[in-house]
Amino acid sequence: MKSPKKILVIHGPNLHLLGRRNPSVYGRTTLNAVNQALRQRAKELKVTLTILQSNHEGEIVDAIGASHSRYDGILINPAAYTHTSVAIRDALESAALPAVEVHLSNIHARESFRQQSLMAPVVSGQVSGFGAHSYLLGLEALHGLLTNSGHKR
Amino acid sequence: MKSPKKILVIHGPNLHLLGRRNPSVYGRTTLNAVNQALRQRAKELKVTLTILQSNHEGEIVDAIGASHSRYDGILINPAAYTHTSVAIRDALESAALPAVEVHLSNIHARESFRQQSLMAPVVSGQVSGFGAHSYLLGLEALHGLLTNSGHKR
Amino acid sequence: MKSPKKILVIHGPNLHLLGRRNPSVYGRTTLNAVNQALRQRAKELKVTLTILQSNHEGEIVDAIGASHSRYDGILINPAAYTHTSVAIRDALESAALPAVEVHLSNIHARESFRQQSLMAPVVSGQVSGFGAHSYLLGLEALHGLLTNSGHKR
Amino acid sequence: MKSPKKILVIHGPNLHLLGRRNPSVYGRTTLNAVNQALRQRAKELKVTLTILQSNHEGEIVDAIGASHSRYDGILINPAAYTHTSVAIRDALESAALPAVEVHLSNIHARESFRQQSLMAPVVSGQVSGFGAHSYLLGLEALHGLLTNSGHKR
Amino acid sequence: MKSPKKILVIHGPNLHLLGRRNPSVYGRTTLNAVNQALRQRAKELKVTLTILQSNHEGEIVDAIGASHSRYDGILINPAAYTHTSVAIRDALESAALPAVEVHLSNIHARESFRQQSLMAPVVSGQVSGFGAHSYLLGLEALHGLLTNSGHKR
Amino acid sequence: MKSPKKILVIHGPNLHLLGRRNPSVYGRTTLNAVNQALRQRAKELKVTLTILQSNHEGEIVDAIGASHSRYDGILINPAAYTHTSVAIRDALESAALPAVEVHLSNIHARESFRQQSLMAPVVSGQVSGFGAHSYLLGLEALHGLLTNSGHKR
Amino acid sequence: MKSPKKILVIHGPNLHLLGRRNPSVYGRTTLNAVNQALRQRAKELKVTLTILQSNHEGEIVDAIGASHSRYDGILINPAAYTHTSVAIRDALESAALPAVEVHLSNIHARESFRQQSLMAPVVSGQVSGFGAHSYLLGLEALHGLLTNSGHKR
Amino acid sequence: MKSPKKILVIHGPNLHLLGRRNPSVYGRTTLNAVNQALRQRAKELKVTLTILQSNHEGEIVDAIGASHSRYDGILINPAAYTHTSVAIRDALESAALPAVEVHLSNIHARESFRQQSLMAPVVSGQVSGFGAHSYLLGLEALHGLLTNSGHKR
Amino acid sequence: MKSPKKILVIHGPNLHLLGRRNPSVYGRTTLNAVNQALRQRAKELKVTLTILQSNHEGEIVDAIGASHSRYDGILINPAAYTHTSVAIRDALESAALPAVEVHLSNIHARESFRQQSLMAPVVSGQVSGFGAHSYLLGLEALHGLLTNSGHKR
Amino acid sequence: MKSPKKILVIHGPNLHLLGRRNPSVYGRTTLNAVNQALRQRAKELKVTLTILQSNHEGEIVDAIGASHSRYDGILINPAAYTHTSVAIRDALESAALPAVEVHLSNIHARESFRQQSLMAPVVSGQVSGFGAHSYLLGLEALHGLLTNSGHKR
Amino acid sequence: MKSPKKILVIHGPNLHLLGRRNPSVYGRTTLNAVNQALRQRAKELKVTLTILQSNHEGEIVDAIGASHSRYDGILINPAAYTHTSVAIRDALESAALPAVEVHLSNIHARESFRQQSLMAPVVSGQVSGFGAHSYLLGLEALHGLLTNSGHKR
Amino acid sequence: MKSPKKILVIHGPNLHLLGRRNPSVYGRTTLNAVNQALRQRAKELKVTLTILQSNHEGEIVDAIGASHSRYDGILINPAAYTHTSVAIRDALESAALPAVEVHLSNIHARESFRQQSLMAPVVSGQVSGFGAHSYLLGLEALHGLLTNSGHKR
Repeated sequence: MKSPKKILVIHGPNLHLLGRRNPSVYGRTTLNAVNQALRQRAKELKVTLTILQSNHEGEIVDAIGASHSRYDGILINPAAYTHTSVAIRDALESAALPAVEVHLSNIHARESFRQQSLMAPVVSGQVSGFGAHSYLLGLEALHGLLTNSGHKR
Repeated sequence: MKSPKKILVIHGPNLHLLGRRNPSVYGRTTLNAVNQALRQRAKELKVTLTILQSNHEGEIVDAIGASHSRYDGILINPAAYTHTSVAIRDALESAALPAVEVHLSNIHARESFRQQSLMAPVVSGQVSGFGAHSYLLGLEALHGLLTNSGHKR
Repeated sequence: MKSPKKILVIHGPNLHLLGRRNPSVYGRTTLNAVNQALRQRAKELKVTLTILQSNHEGEIVDAIGASHSRYDGILINPAAYTHTSVAIRDALESAALPAVEVHLSNIHARESFRQQSLMAPVVSGQVSGFGAHSYLLGLEALHGLLTNSGHKR
Repeated sequence: MKSPKKILVIHGPNLHLLGRRNPSVYGRTTLNAVNQALRQRAKELKVTLTILQSNHEGEIVDAIGASHSRYDGILINPAAYTHTSVAIRDALESAALPAVEVHLSNIHARESFRQQSLMAPVVSGQVSGFGAHSYLLGLEALHGLLTNSGHKR
Repeated sequence: MKSPKKILVIHGPNLHLLGRRNPSVYGRTTLNAVNQALRQRAKELKVTLTILQSNHEGEIVDAIGASHSRYDGILINPAAYTHTSVAIRDALESAALPAVEVHLSNIHARESFRQQSLMAPVVSGQVSGFGAHSYLLGLEALHGLLTNSGHKR
Repeated sequence: MKSPKKILVIHGPNLHLLGRRNPSVYGRTTLNAVNQALRQRAKELKVTLTILQSNHEGEIVDAIGASHSRYDGILINPAAYTHTSVAIRDALESAALPAVEVHLSNIHARESFRQQSLMAPVVSGQVSGFGAHSYLLGLEALHGLLTNSGHKR
Repeated sequence: MKSPKKILVIHGPNLHLLGRRNPSVYGRTTLNAVNQALRQRAKELKVTLTILQSNHEGEIVDAIGASHSRYDGILINPAAYTHTSVAIRDALESAALPAVEVHLSNIHARESFRQQSLMAPVVSGQVSGFGAHSYLLGLEALHGLLTNSGHKR
Repeated sequence: MKSPKKILVIHGPNLHLLGRRNPSVYGRTTLNAVNQALRQRAKELKVTLTILQSNHEGEIVDAIGASHSRYDGILINPAAYTHTSVAIRDALESAALPAVEVHLSNIHARESFRQQSLMAPVVSGQVSGFGAHSYLLGLEALHGLLTNSGHKR
Repeated sequence: MKSPKKILVIHGPNLHLLGRRNPSVYGRTTLNAVNQALRQRAKELKVTLTILQSNHEGEIVDAIGASHSRYDGILINPAAYTHTSVAIRDALESAALPAVEVHLSNIHARESFRQQSLMAPVVSGQVSGFGAHSYLLGLEALHGLLTNSGHKR
Repeated sequence: MKSPKKILVIHGPNLHLLGRRNPSVYGRTTLNAVNQALRQRAKELKVTLTILQSNHEGEIVDAIGASHSRYDGILINPAAYTHTSVAIRDALESAALPAVEVHLSNIHARESFRQQSLMAPVVSGQVSGFGAHSYLLGLEALHGLLTNSGHKR
Repeated sequence: MKSPKKILVIHGPNLHLLGRRNPSVYGRTTLNAVNQALRQRAKELKVTLTILQSNHEGEIVDAIGASHSRYDGILINPAAYTHTSVAIRDALESAALPAVEVHLSNIHARESFRQQSLMAPVVSGQVSGFGAHSYLLGLEALHGLLTNSGHKR
Repeated sequence: MKSPKKILVIHGPNLHLLGRRNPSVYGRTTLNAVNQALRQRAKELKVTLTILQSNHEGEIVDAIGASHSRYDGILINPAAYTHTSVAIRDALESAALPAVEVHLSNIHARESFRQQSLMAPVVSGQVSGFGAHSYLLGLEALHGLLTNSGHKR
């Protein structure tokens, strides 16, 4: 409707190794390839992306804390912090922006400690299990939230 | 690549009332509207859809049991049966077809008994929390599984 | 006040055998006798009853789903489904009608898996432990809700 | 049949404030009004009532302990003691009189610690969720037990 | 001893696919082959069989509810309903016939939710883990209960 | 050794009914008979007894709180308060006197909520399961603690 | 601002022994000394205090129940009842006055059954672990609630 | 097919008392009678049996540990050790022979600590609830495993 | 009354070291001294004792299994096996003799895994926490059961 | 008494956003305002403050690790790390300085995962629920510990 | 320093089969080879070894009970008894000798019932996961405890 | 065999304070002393060490993430992160290098939250409880894995 929507994309810990670790679980796509695909799809959707990868819980909290007036939405794969970080959860809740949580693997089919997402109650929705494709679907979902109906949570 | 992929879409119990119940939770889109949107998107993706809504666990088990040679994949919103039906889970596992689980609401943010999906370990992935949009994203995800990489689970 | 209130009475699984099974637990009154007593009391209260017995979870979901504009309230003994059916719970919640849950036996004094009612959070109240009399008390309670104070939940 | 049945009615802690606290939860009826309605209904049922309200667990235990030869049945709303008093439970069990447990609110739909009744295994049945009406239904239920079938537990 | 014993054999959900699904877990014998073997063994034991397969919990409840005067015993593989159906359990308990529970796989060695049988407390015994052979052993066990010692539970 | 030891004997809630309730569980001895036997044995052991029965948690706390300089030891059957009263536990701990806990029935063989004693960590020992004889054994045990070895806990 | 605020101070069970029991845990200050310090600080803050100590759950419920129109706030150390009294919790909730919960010891660092406060959800805040100083801090906190911002809960 | 199969039969603790203890639970057949019936059936099946009864966990571990090259299969009623012996479980797993677990009573219908079998994950299957007949069915099941299909686990 | 009662006394594992290990917990009395005191008291009570100490679960099961016609009652300190041996529990239950369980330390005040006695449901009563004196009290309790009232359990 | 006490004040993750996020929960006071109020109160109490805010668990561990010889006490609002950081707990324990834990909201009245503080066992006490006032009360409490009685934990 | 240290080495149940069972889990080294390596290393460390393997819990308790004045330390692989034997734990605690627990496999990465060691609280330390090498490392660790610093626990 | 093995040594949070904190638990050896001992032993074993201490979870994840082609193995004391960091666990799993986990104290004998290691399932083995000696034993264990048998996990 107005100027292009700005989206903050956050890749959590160990994702810089994507494509190089456990390919049987996570596939062979690298993080660069994921980011390229995301940028490509962003162009089609006419949104702009800022992308961050960090292994540091504090950096992710910093970034989300600073996102409020700079972005319209957050696309996040919290990776291992999904299950342990109340700090990131609180940051997402404070940010008060539409947020979508994505996971490469189907976390609901893995070890029991991976089946609980601390983020779930503070995001709009979740996409999991489709490998790198999860990101593109998540971006689309977020775009839907931003353009259609504003921030429904 | 070859002949158009055939997808079985299953709507679980109470979804025939979509748009008429709890609009604050589930929105105002009716099941008809969801199905129309699905058919529209299916046409674009060049897949064909067969759509079933049932409140009967046994009918859903029947349908999945008969799906093996007739469909290439399953898109299912098991609704209330997500949390209680081992029979549907076993049926999905037997069917041995790529399957995607979708939910209108973000089940991971609701009552604790809704946070556990019995289906999760036997489907490829899950999309939840985007209202009727969850179905379209799920269809796209399933299409990706069918065309790209076959059945990865 | 206005035209007679219409009430849907639902008997859950195995209740067609009432009076013939476990008489030490459930007494010797048959379902027919219960229904007669209910109709008798309904006449006195000037409400009309439609009575359904089913062993099929799906049929009960169907019936509740269709109840919205046809009935003013629901009197239900969900029997075994009390403890296992999220689908019936969702149906009751969708129906958005005053509903009263009754049990022949005092479920809170039985095996631990019978002490939890999935229905409780979506009904107005519960009567349990008085054998066939539970139904009459439940009907009276529902009548009170319908005539006095509308739908308080 | 014979001389009028004598019933001990016990109101547990905080019920003296009925109608003045949390009216959204407990309604606006005062305890006096409840007692008047109970006495009115008792007259119709030809039973006599003795009514006690106490905030003291020990007083309630005393009263039940002294009830054996003086009353034919007990109607009790144990309120907060429902969930914590083994002493009242033991007293009810010792009294060996038909007893009916009533609750103003639907305790099975509230905080989890309110969903467990320590009294349930030693009373005949339970009525919950109908506000002040719960008492009248409970009185009727108790009357049924006393006149029909003696003490069935 | 007297007229031939009549046995109701019930195959639960998904068993119509036997031999076609997960052969590594359930083997390659089809349900037809199982039924033939059962009929063959029944002839030797001089009992008559009525065989039902259903994916519908309600149909199984119906069948057991109608079994009382028609059969002398029940041989049941409740499959997925083993772990979720209080309704079938109640039906078996009402039927008050000797009943034997069989499982193709060793359910006690599988996922934790499959290790609990809701049926166990209401059947005479259980045979599990011997593939299709479990049925024949179960039939023999039931025959023993019917001819030797009547209904010991 | 010195002046006769003074012992406070406390009977918890409902014990005034002893011998009149649940004789199959608690036997037919009355509280009076128990007290007589205790006084008889106390005479032999050359200790003096003060005996209290109360249904009121607060009275028991009062009595224990006042015991410090007046008694040498406490013999207590906390009955129902065994499992619920942190206040009595704290009182016993404050009193800092040798204390022995007795139970008529074998509480470790009863309902699970009766198997946990809140008192156990603050008393010297426990005697349970011997009916009225438990009191005499407990008195003897307490006497042993007072004369032999002082207060070992 | 207006007439001096009136505060009800409640000391729970066993606190009359303060300074005389477990000095290693609770220090050597007596309850009298605590009360003097409280009155001193109250004078400075220009609030008036009414002080109650009771070992009886029922008396505490009575006092809170009668507090509504007589006091502006409640300062309570529920001691052992913190963990067991739903009745006091309900009384506090009914009173609908600002209330502050204080503890001498750091209850969150003690036995697990002392780490859960049934009062917490119905009070404004909690001060624990500072010995007798906890009371003064609690009084100050309550004064802040009464003068600053009214009753925020 | 080849030389007769050799089977080790193990009776766990307290089974030497069979027929003399709890006849209402375990029946009146003695262990001798069970062994005779087993030898009789073994002759028909053309297998040879070695039978051991021991109350000593260590002896049972010894025997299983020595079984590898001497026997073709193991028939075991681990009795009380079913629920407590990781050592016997490890021995069975090491033995790497087909093994069948039998129980006289229906362990799944007894106290909860008897419903879990530590052996289940390392045996082929289980027969429980048919009294002494369980052994004969178990022998037949083991024979089936040995002759048909070798060691399927 | 008749010939002297014969009692089997069983000391469980590690008790041969009594007086030499953890004196702060178990005191300095040796097992010999305990046995002497027991024999002394037995002479006074006119009962005869047979005493067994064993570290072997199997030997204890053997001894109890052989006790039926040889003894009138069992006095047992199962020590570590209290918490782990279903086999000894089953043996005690089979023996069907009055049995009393004793513990040197107050097991209910120790590590949580020591607070649960597997023996409790099959013995008459329990004495714990009085060091070597526990045995003498237990002997007296057992004597009471044998002479007074026969075997009440 | 001596040179002014030096206190390290630590604000955990997301607190830099105070006053800007969830004002309904956390109020509208900014962190700057809190710090000013703290400095003001510090001046009155004659203590000096060093204030740190960090979203990084590691930075907080660093700061506490370096505090030993530089500060006399620690005032910490660990925010989200309260519930997840064993590292901060270990740091506090190592620092061996008096420490006070404060919370803006009443954490004991929030989601269950917020009711457990990993810090509690290693701090002196806790103040929670009074918004920004919690900090001032905590400072006062810490001052009391430092001046009165040294480090009592 | 003084005469050579004497160490008791205990191999628990099923370890006599080492190298012959589950080589994928436990490797192919036999117990003889382990013992040779241990003796070789003992010679280098100038300690003497006595080695025991037993499948009998009681024998292991006997051996530890007799170890006190004969050995300076204990090296034990309790195998299956790690998780079930309170008797061995108590024996180790009584022995009051430095003890080291070793495991061939990484027990913390196996089935949940193998992740809990009952021995851990009474031994000095643990080495697990290095196959036969675990024993040598454990011997070295024990040697360190015996020569350096005596018995630190 | 070939060029010297390169090992990354990681000391988790608070370990920079080693020897200065809780000497009763962790001893008086400083981290420098540990590192010197490690380098000394490394020289003997002909391996090279790179040593990192960090209080930052993210830095440890970074270091492990970068280790793949630079090191042959990892020796890690994750300290507090042992129990909370899924991120470090995932990093270790991605690194796909032999890894050994060491702990100064016997974590299995401490608070229950310290008994669970999130790292255990992804490392080869664990050494705990021997103070600074744990590191040397861990280094030796890792060396064994690297030289003998490559990476066995």
